[in-house]
Amino acid sequence: MTLPKLNKNQVFFGTFVHAKHLGELEFLHNTAVCVDTSGKIVAVEPNCNQQKTVEALYARLRWSLEDTSVTLGWDKRLFFFPGFVDTHAHASQYPNLGIFGKTTLLDWLNTYTFPTEASLAELPKARRVYTRCIRQALAHGTTTAAYYATIDVNATNLLADLCFSMGQRAFVGRVCMDHLGPDYYRDESADQSIAATQATIEHIRSIDNNFELVSPILTPRFAPACSSEIMKGLSEVQQRTQLPVQTHISENVNEIELVKELFPDCKHYADVYDTHGLLNEKTILAHAIHLTEEEADLIAKRKAKIAHCPCSNSALSSGVARVRWLLEKGIQVGLGSDMSGGYSPSILEAARHAKLVSNHLIMPGGTLGNLSSEERDKAKLSIEEVLYLATKGGAEVMGLADKIGTFEVGKQWDAQLIWTGLVPDEVAYDDFTTYGATDIFGWETPDERIAKWVFNGDSHNVRKVWVAGRLVHEQLLRKENWMDELSANSDLDGVGLLDD
Amino acid sequence: MTLPKLNKNQVFFGTFVHAKHLGELEFLHNTAVCVDTSGKIVAVEPNCNQQKTVEALYARLRWSLEDTSVTLGWDKRLFFFPGFVDTHAHASQYPNLGIFGKTTLLDWLNTYTFPTEASLAELPKARRVYTRCIRQALAHGTTTAAYYATIDVNATNLLADLCFSMGQRAFVGRVCMDHLGPDYYRDESADQSIAATQATIEHIRSIDNNFELVSPILTPRFAPACSSEIMKGLSEVQQRTQLPVQTHISENVNEIELVKELFPDCKHYADVYDTHGLLNEKTILAHAIHLTEEEADLIAKRKAKIAHCPCSNSALSSGVARVRWLLEKGIQVGLGSDMSGGYSPSILEAARHAKLVSNHLIMPGGTLGNLSSEERDKAKLSIEEVLYLATKGGAEVMGLADKIGTFEVGKQWDAQLIWTGLVPDEVAYDDFTTYGATDIFGWETPDERIAKWVFNGDSHNVRKVWVAGRLVHEQLLRKENWMDELSANSDLDGVGLLDD
Repeated sequence: MTLPKLNKNQVFFGTFVHAKHLGELEFLHNTAVCVDTSGKIVAVEPNCNQQKTVEALYARLRWSLEDTSVTLGWDKRLFFFPGFVDTHAHASQYPNLGIFGKTTLLDWLNTYTFPTEASLAELPKARRVYTRCIRQALAHGTTTAAYYATIDVNATNLLADLCFSMGQRAFVGRVCMDHLGPDYYRDESADQSIAATQATIEHIRSIDNNFELVSPILTPRFAPACSSEIMKGLSEVQQRTQLPVQTHISENVNEIELVKELFPDCKHYADVYDTHGLLNEKTILAHAIHLTEEEADLIAKRKAKIAHCPCSNSALSSGVARVRWLLEKGIQVGLGSDMSGGYSPSILEAARHAKLVSNHLIMPGGTLGNLSSEERDKAKLSIEEVLYLATKGGAEVMGLADKIGTFEVGKQWDAQLIWTGLVPDEVAYDDFTTYGATDIFGWETPDERIAKWVFNGDSHNVRKVWVAGRLVHEQLLRKENWMDELSANSDLDGVGLLDD
Repeated sequence: MTLPKLNKNQVFFGTFVHAKHLGELEFLHNTAVCVDTSGKIVAVEPNCNQQKTVEALYARLRWSLEDTSVTLGWDKRLFFFPGFVDTHAHASQYPNLGIFGKTTLLDWLNTYTFPTEASLAELPKARRVYTRCIRQALAHGTTTAAYYATIDVNATNLLADLCFSMGQRAFVGRVCMDHLGPDYYRDESADQSIAATQATIEHIRSIDNNFELVSPILTPRFAPACSSEIMKGLSEVQQRTQLPVQTHISENVNEIELVKELFPDCKHYADVYDTHGLLNEKTILAHAIHLTEEEADLIAKRKAKIAHCPCSNSALSSGVARVRWLLEKGIQVGLGSDMSGGYSPSILEAARHAKLVSNHLIMPGGTLGNLSSEERDKAKLSIEEVLYLATKGGAEVMGLADKIGTFEVGKQWDAQLIWTGLVPDEVAYDDFTTYGATDIFGWETPDERIAKWVFNGDSHNVRKVWVAGRLVHEQLLRKENWMDELSANSDLDGVGLLDD
């Protein structure tokens, strides 16, 4: 199979915000973005109005009114933002969000994680969990995700089927582990593990021939759970297929000790993957908290990528990754929800928390608390930076930077329409609509409005979500109300939310 | 004025969850809570059903069917929880939520805070900001708040009026500061400051004679902004009126240095308040991050209280308060949103973040990272503990533990009705209702369901809120839908959400 073409071309009007470069947001006001029937952006026209676009742009693109559907975002409360990229998520752990108690990584795996993952061999349960996981991810604006499934082939295939059916761009990995896991949840042998992985690759090829929307990803769980044979086998599969790889690195100090014991001949954790042929530009490494200078240099040299998972790192008391340090080494970094080490399916929450934990690094008592005032300021991540990590950074980590992450001609229309509150001038006591606490008063700068969204936004601010041009999520609302409110509040001159 | 009586007695049926003791949640299943026309709980009847209650309980209370209104919470997704207590919030900074960039306390005050507070001397603006602040706080389940207003008497009086009209239990403080603030935002003299404070006390007495719902609170901003004369004057007012006091302590290392310079004769920050007669059992101290052993001992001895503000402490890179250490000294601790040093109006967010930052304390690289494994485990706060801080702990901090914080006979009905998601057995791709990501599958233990709410709940899980028996917030929903859904999913045998 391949993705079917869309019925119509599409034009989206309004304010578009994206992060083309680390630390900068670009605001495109009064802009039209044109998307063709393959879901590709074919024009980005700033400073226009609907009339102008219809006349000039349609002529240029040879589009007709009848063949084009129009989505209007001419409202002060609306803006389009690129879909979020979740570079590290265990779909199979979705039912455990928020459930971790006082555990840390290794006891958390045994207490909560392995039993839940094992139970998804029961397919109706897997369907219920995976369907809900994907729906929530889409509802939180995540258009692309790198998922871990479980060791079970059928359940992994089901996850891939559901991503394809529900329209989420995804890498789906069948988990390989022949060590560490309990008897009831472990691959029998390296050979069996590789064969099972092959089976999921073939299945995904059968539903999405060119891996256009859904791709397999090779998934050695993490070094302590993998024999040398599994890792070597996966490296061979990678050399043959050029598929991406995902795994964990240096999340927890006890885990690092365990890796030292299990692989005494390797110089360090990063060297384990390197010597097994799994550290290369297609490798996504989750966490990377306690890396040594030498490990980070090796990762940079191999062009491997890092999934920063701040919510998980705080929840499991793992530590704080030094993102600025990684970025300065030239390593590409994205954000991961790490469900359910992380407690939230939201990459906006991950972005918010990435900013907060970068503050923790340099606080009095923090790992970098003794740096100079200037160095401390620099180590902190800005709103613009965490939004870059959430979108274009994530696209780079997944090797998809040519396809997604920004609103640029040639990229796919993977986008979310964000809606924030706008406080009336004469506010009544009981005025309350469900936008969370993203209250805009009207005097804020565009940057401040974005900051309000980042710090108080949630799934209720995500009105619509598209992947490859397809509408894949829409908030359930009283349609008549949403339209009434829109027209009552719309500025027909075409001023977007984030206009000055 | 005084609070008018309610028209009817009320009975609430369902599952009630509360934290009577630190670290424990009590689950009252199939329970009836009866509330009289003064808003007081007069009966808590577990293990009952509606029929039994009508027959036995009404007879005992001498209530009749006609004089009693009934709220049913017989649904697997519903439970009642005590209203949250926000022990530290600057209502006047509400418009700046999420806006703090890379600043820390002292430059944040000058860049964002003083200009915003000063601008609220314009009353229509103050009305818009305060109305929205109170509405959002109620919508997030905060039934009681200790608010800072501004130095402006009229705007402070307006905040008190709005709290009373909108039905939120509140302490409202006119901010006293004759130092540090910019020329445009500072009291002229200590005498003027005290007189202005007196004016707000008289105003609040005129709207709520016995301070039943809204009370004044003496509010020396913080030591660096107050002359000795202001603090001594406020201490005299307190001795005369027995009103509570709120201020800040030991939030930021530069602030602490400044206090040393400004008060060279005082032993330490806590001693500044103590020598000015402001450290006593009616004092709420916000932050308390960098206290010395000696300061904490003094605070404990004086029975002063602490408002823990984790969101603010992370946002402004202030540090991590050692809550376990404070609790073990016998100090009563509550949670504060600290809007807008804190980015969220939600005490649920504060509770969640209080748990996460307690992990940060003991992480590798954290302030207490070198403790033994047992000591580190102990320093972490549990879900049960942060929910205690959010409710009964806050009640203790505000001196209201006899009135609010738990569901017990004699206390006021200050409560929220919480609603979480319940994933259907046969989930459809597009099933999505706006409960955030609080998805309950049905196999979770009661504790795990609460954990899911704490880590993914937001204002959309707050269906109704009552203060002193009065319904003060209700989520705008299609009423017919909510009722349809309820009856379609209700278990008529009376099983609440959190039943095993």
